[in-house]
Amino acid sequence: MEKTGVLIVGALGTISVSVITGITAINRGLLPERGMIANEADFDPLNMVPMDRLVFGGWDIREDTLIEAARKQEVVPPSILEEISEELENIPVWPGALSNVDDHIQDVYALQDSPASLLEEVRNISESIDQFKQEHNVHRVVVVNATATEKYVEPLSLYDCLDNFEDGLESDSKDIRSGMLYAYAALKNGCAYVNFTPSITAEIPALQELAEKEQVPIAGKDGRTGQTLYKHVLGKMFKARGLKIKGWYSTNILGNADGKVLNDPEHSATKIASKENGLEHILGYHDFDHLVRIDYFPIRGDHKEAWDTIEFEGWLGEQMSMKVNWLGSDATLAAPLIIDLVRFMDHALRLNLSGFQKHLALFFKSPYQDEEYAMDEQYQRLLQFTNTVNTIR
Amino acid sequence: MEKTGVLIVGALGTISVSVITGITAINRGLLPERGMIANEADFDPLNMVPMDRLVFGGWDIREDTLIEAARKQEVVPPSILEEISEELENIPVWPGALSNVDDHIQDVYALQDSPASLLEEVRNISESIDQFKQEHNVHRVVVVNATATEKYVEPLSLYDCLDNFEDGLESDSKDIRSGMLYAYAALKNGCAYVNFTPSITAEIPALQELAEKEQVPIAGKDGRTGQTLYKHVLGKMFKARGLKIKGWYSTNILGNADGKVLNDPEHSATKIASKENGLEHILGYHDFDHLVRIDYFPIRGDHKEAWDTIEFEGWLGEQMSMKVNWLGSDATLAAPLIIDLVRFMDHALRLNLSGFQKHLALFFKSPYQDEEYAMDEQYQRLLQFTNTVNTIR
Amino acid sequence: MEKTGVLIVGALGTISVSVITGITAINRGLLPERGMIANEADFDPLNMVPMDRLVFGGWDIREDTLIEAARKQEVVPPSILEEISEELENIPVWPGALSNVDDHIQDVYALQDSPASLLEEVRNISESIDQFKQEHNVHRVVVVNATATEKYVEPLSLYDCLDNFEDGLESDSKDIRSGMLYAYAALKNGCAYVNFTPSITAEIPALQELAEKEQVPIAGKDGRTGQTLYKHVLGKMFKARGLKIKGWYSTNILGNADGKVLNDPEHSATKIASKENGLEHILGYHDFDHLVRIDYFPIRGDHKEAWDTIEFEGWLGEQMSMKVNWLGSDATLAAPLIIDLVRFMDHALRLNLSGFQKHLALFFKSPYQDEEYAMDEQYQRLLQFTNTVNTIR
Amino acid sequence: MEKTGVLIVGALGTISVSVITGITAINRGLLPERGMIANEADFDPLNMVPMDRLVFGGWDIREDTLIEAARKQEVVPPSILEEISEELENIPVWPGALSNVDDHIQDVYALQDSPASLLEEVRNISESIDQFKQEHNVHRVVVVNATATEKYVEPLSLYDCLDNFEDGLESDSKDIRSGMLYAYAALKNGCAYVNFTPSITAEIPALQELAEKEQVPIAGKDGRTGQTLYKHVLGKMFKARGLKIKGWYSTNILGNADGKVLNDPEHSATKIASKENGLEHILGYHDFDHLVRIDYFPIRGDHKEAWDTIEFEGWLGEQMSMKVNWLGSDATLAAPLIIDLVRFMDHALRLNLSGFQKHLALFFKSPYQDEEYAMDEQYQRLLQFTNTVNTIR
Repeated sequence: MEKTGVLIVGALGTISVSVITGITAINRGLLPERGMIANEADFDPLNMVPMDRLVFGGWDIREDTLIEAARKQEVVPPSILEEISEELENIPVWPGALSNVDDHIQDVYALQDSPASLLEEVRNISESIDQFKQEHNVHRVVVVNATATEKYVEPLSLYDCLDNFEDGLESDSKDIRSGMLYAYAALKNGCAYVNFTPSITAEIPALQELAEKEQVPIAGKDGRTGQTLYKHVLGKMFKARGLKIKGWYSTNILGNADGKVLNDPEHSATKIASKENGLEHILGYHDFDHLVRIDYFPIRGDHKEAWDTIEFEGWLGEQMSMKVNWLGSDATLAAPLIIDLVRFMDHALRLNLSGFQKHLALFFKSPYQDEEYAMDEQYQRLLQFTNTVNTIR
Repeated sequence: MEKTGVLIVGALGTISVSVITGITAINRGLLPERGMIANEADFDPLNMVPMDRLVFGGWDIREDTLIEAARKQEVVPPSILEEISEELENIPVWPGALSNVDDHIQDVYALQDSPASLLEEVRNISESIDQFKQEHNVHRVVVVNATATEKYVEPLSLYDCLDNFEDGLESDSKDIRSGMLYAYAALKNGCAYVNFTPSITAEIPALQELAEKEQVPIAGKDGRTGQTLYKHVLGKMFKARGLKIKGWYSTNILGNADGKVLNDPEHSATKIASKENGLEHILGYHDFDHLVRIDYFPIRGDHKEAWDTIEFEGWLGEQMSMKVNWLGSDATLAAPLIIDLVRFMDHALRLNLSGFQKHLALFFKSPYQDEEYAMDEQYQRLLQFTNTVNTIR
Repeated sequence: MEKTGVLIVGALGTISVSVITGITAINRGLLPERGMIANEADFDPLNMVPMDRLVFGGWDIREDTLIEAARKQEVVPPSILEEISEELENIPVWPGALSNVDDHIQDVYALQDSPASLLEEVRNISESIDQFKQEHNVHRVVVVNATATEKYVEPLSLYDCLDNFEDGLESDSKDIRSGMLYAYAALKNGCAYVNFTPSITAEIPALQELAEKEQVPIAGKDGRTGQTLYKHVLGKMFKARGLKIKGWYSTNILGNADGKVLNDPEHSATKIASKENGLEHILGYHDFDHLVRIDYFPIRGDHKEAWDTIEFEGWLGEQMSMKVNWLGSDATLAAPLIIDLVRFMDHALRLNLSGFQKHLALFFKSPYQDEEYAMDEQYQRLLQFTNTVNTIR
Repeated sequence: MEKTGVLIVGALGTISVSVITGITAINRGLLPERGMIANEADFDPLNMVPMDRLVFGGWDIREDTLIEAARKQEVVPPSILEEISEELENIPVWPGALSNVDDHIQDVYALQDSPASLLEEVRNISESIDQFKQEHNVHRVVVVNATATEKYVEPLSLYDCLDNFEDGLESDSKDIRSGMLYAYAALKNGCAYVNFTPSITAEIPALQELAEKEQVPIAGKDGRTGQTLYKHVLGKMFKARGLKIKGWYSTNILGNADGKVLNDPEHSATKIASKENGLEHILGYHDFDHLVRIDYFPIRGDHKEAWDTIEFEGWLGEQMSMKVNWLGSDATLAAPLIIDLVRFMDHALRLNLSGFQKHLALFFKSPYQDEEYAMDEQYQRLLQFTNTVNTIR
């Protein structure tokens, strides 16, 4: 039976480690499945790749091994970790591309500048993919971006078309961000590409062009895991009841390296933009006080705490309020979505679907080229896609 | 142009006063509309009765006038109240039926026993309806139950069929509760009947039989206004993400007469049963700690505060939590739903639809004879109903 | 150097296990000290018994061993537990007195009725104390009541004086509750007695008389650990600012056996009475809505969650609010207080102080024969006591 | 009987309007007293000036009248406002000094640059004070700074001594901030000076020197009204229980002009510094994550909402948490403190007390030249001061 490769950019981060150790433990029956939907009967017609046919690998700019990262992060209980340590040792984590990594990320991880040119970086990534396919006898590969949020970039002519972008690669342009290198290499090598972060990568026209040219699917961006998930759901509720939002204040506090990266305003700007859009689309208006804050609070560790205070107006102008406090583990909420996405994207590869996979909007905060943010509508759309695929077959 | 009568049982309660004064002020352009959906373009095909064609009346067991109740409750600012006082004075509030009112409610309102027999009570209610129709030249009437929650009653053979029920009326059975008298009289007189409370009224087989016999529509029960509304919405979210609820504790604190009535365990039992069902249906399992508490906290007045603490389990068995605090005015949240319901029910009367109107499940905590509690599905169903009606015409 | 015995009633409960395993691990340097005050420089003059001179024992109605209870409760990490297992195995836990245990507690623990008379029970307790003193070469013993809350009892003539009480013992009166038996035996044997629970034990006049007669110190009651702690502190703040409390709603949700016992209204009544008094004393008025709820929510396990919503009035009658959410481990908060109390009581024994030790009010929700609930005043009083003792010497 | 003048810098702000309209309405018996302590029996020995002997005036940079500001702010119900309008019209509000007002404050209030020199500004302020004294036959004057927070300033040699400062006045130094001008003029004219804001004014050595020279009392700074009040109180509780704070995250959201001013990082820095110190002093350590955020959220209006999430460690290293949500009106909480301060400062003037009045630390977030932040200790100190004064007399 065929196997599918899953290569993760940022393979030593908590989300990635949670994906890899979790699925390994689940496949061995050591831990329960939770938080995934691809196994539901609704999606049976898609005949998705079984979870035990996924093989993993990835890149990271940190110098560590997967097993050591897993031991430190304690995503999986130590006794279980030891049981799966052999499998983990067989999973390759290649050194990440160091070119054009944001200064602030370099500081957080204490990195050094790369001696390699951009073309060399792309070549290295491509070779890793090739080698992985051969060694593991893998037919299809999904590349998932799960790195820390990169800083916000403005549109540039460099991004406008593939020719410009490839000129930029040759001339070692500083504007080709690290995350774009992987997206380029993935698409160029016929891999499906998932952007689970808010960073700007596959959405630039140059890479869209490449995806169409190579006939590969893209999905993104920014996994909808915690605060944004319930904001979209509650926003729809207020909308459906004709209750007018007057103010919505959202604060997030998080520890770990992700929090440290987002502690820089240029990086949090990328994230906040991604978090704000959806709610306003769902409500259908912008005339309310909407603030989203992200703060680095190291004691939270891998957990993320969110607090929202919502003011809304009802019948006869009466003011009312709702407050939400959420305490979740980012990795725990993200990992099953990544497994789901990988399996849906593998299915897309099998069917030669290319470009943005809009039926996967359900998984994202800021679905690519899409204006449907309401979770129930997105779920219906995924069901319809499934039915259509089923009918065609 | 035709007018539609709206007769409210419990016409001096805060919800009713909010409905009547609010719609009067809105029709005069003195206050903004908020919280209703019947005016949305989606429902244009139904050609619903305009809001300014609704004429109001009702019954109450309290001795007070509508204008005085409105002054005390301050639902509408005093200056606006004075502007509409003349209209309010023309709205009849008849003395409510005192037979078989629960002891605890009698205490709260300091009532005396009724000297009238059940049949006399029914006759009085019927005469009020008749007289109202003639005086206001009204063709269709919707009766809405908006009283305090009655105590829980067990199924009895008395409720099993119309014959038994009518025997009970003749023999002044103590088991025919006050709310059932109005439902009976309403249906008997060809009125649509809406049960906005959790009390057991139109759902007994005897009254279903009557509704079918008289060919009139019924809708209920228990308006979904605050805590239950967001519980259903959030429950669906957890379900759709494969996150397993392990515990959900909900407490409600409320002042006013409604709170005082619910302060009695026999009454709160009715309410709590109504509040628990939906969530468990939506989740599809019952193996979690689910507690719902209601407490009388006079300082809250007409507001209702709710607090929920939710424990859920994700990927690899990780425990996470969400907490919600809601501060809403019950009357404010309920009033626009009642106006919406009246207009949908008036439409049902026009189309001779009879029995339980399942497409109106959207508005209720415990939709009659229905197991769909998810708000998005219910909304879809109401849209489909609208499309179907439109196509048929 | 002398040793002090600590005998705990309810020795297998989480609080007791936390005390015993915790202090053992702390004395071995395996875990950090936190939450105690007796070690502070302020109290140096009292020359309290060092923590490593405390030797433990106790009684329990549950059939289990200390080491097994500790393994199940996981108060201490498994690896540390194994390191101290030998010490734990040397700590005696005798079978608890089964006479006159509340029915509801019998149900929770699946107990059987006792065949012993009350005098036999007292004799058994006394013998255990004697034997423990000899075996461990212990000069002074502090008995601590740390059982589940007993049900509320009204004042009876039986409790009025020692003669009546002893007549009751002889006649096996049902009104001598289980907790009173231990208090009686402790005092009779010259032990200091601490009531860490809200149950009615040493406060009855008969036992006060005994304590004076035997010249032994008593302290209680009901350790102030979580919600009541911050309520007293915040109440004082509002008082000191002239802000008038209008409503204070407090709910507690807890799992474990203690929660199960409190799930019975007769038991929670004892607890709630203990929780309400202090705040009203501190504020100096009762004209506000004050509600305290306790609910059994098994998923919470050994943790206790509390939620308070407080309405207060300021300048010109403006209404404002404060809300608190507390998530604490009861055992964690209680254990260090017990160690502190034991050391202060041992000091009282050394000085031949007898009767209620008012300077220890700081540790309790409902200090015996005292009306000072404000934490800062109580702390000052403890300091003054310390200074006085120091001066005398 | 003698009268005392109260001149407020920022007289048209919500706090000031609340002080002036409130005390006027209270003196007329139209509204209840709340939130003050100077009337308590404890302070009877000080024989403080009665509330109806206070006469008000002030300065503001906004062009408005007191009565118009009061109408807009609705601190007092309209009907009561009309009853006291005549008294309000007699209260002078002089144009504020426009020199060296922060750019950001100029933007918020749409101000223009001042044509006056600093010496002219000081002269104008002094003349207003003089004239007010004569017109109202006032013997003692307390000047209160209640303006928006100025931006943070670093120590400069200009502030080091009175000579340097007066040189700066002559040379129109940009570093003499607006708030310092009033403090200088107040002290120079023998007025007591209270800094109710976090701005840097009377604490600079130059103005301390002036206060000593003129023998007038100073108190400050930054009224402790909401979040900081309960943080100090809770901090003390954790300290007194030996519970170690690991993280304390505090966010504030507020509307109105004050919020708009604090929306600028240079201004909020002044405020945040003032908010952070006290807690760390009370706890006695700094090794915890402590974050304070302030956000402008216009819908909050004159209310201030705060949310805190606190992580603390207990017995055996167990992690626990407390969360607080506070919704208060800043003006409501501040106004009674200002009245109290004015009366205590008037008493200080009568007794010829000069320099920093440390016994008034109770009222402030950052008491001048003081390291006692614990409310209970500060209260004790104020009582001791009262007793001492009483004994001396």
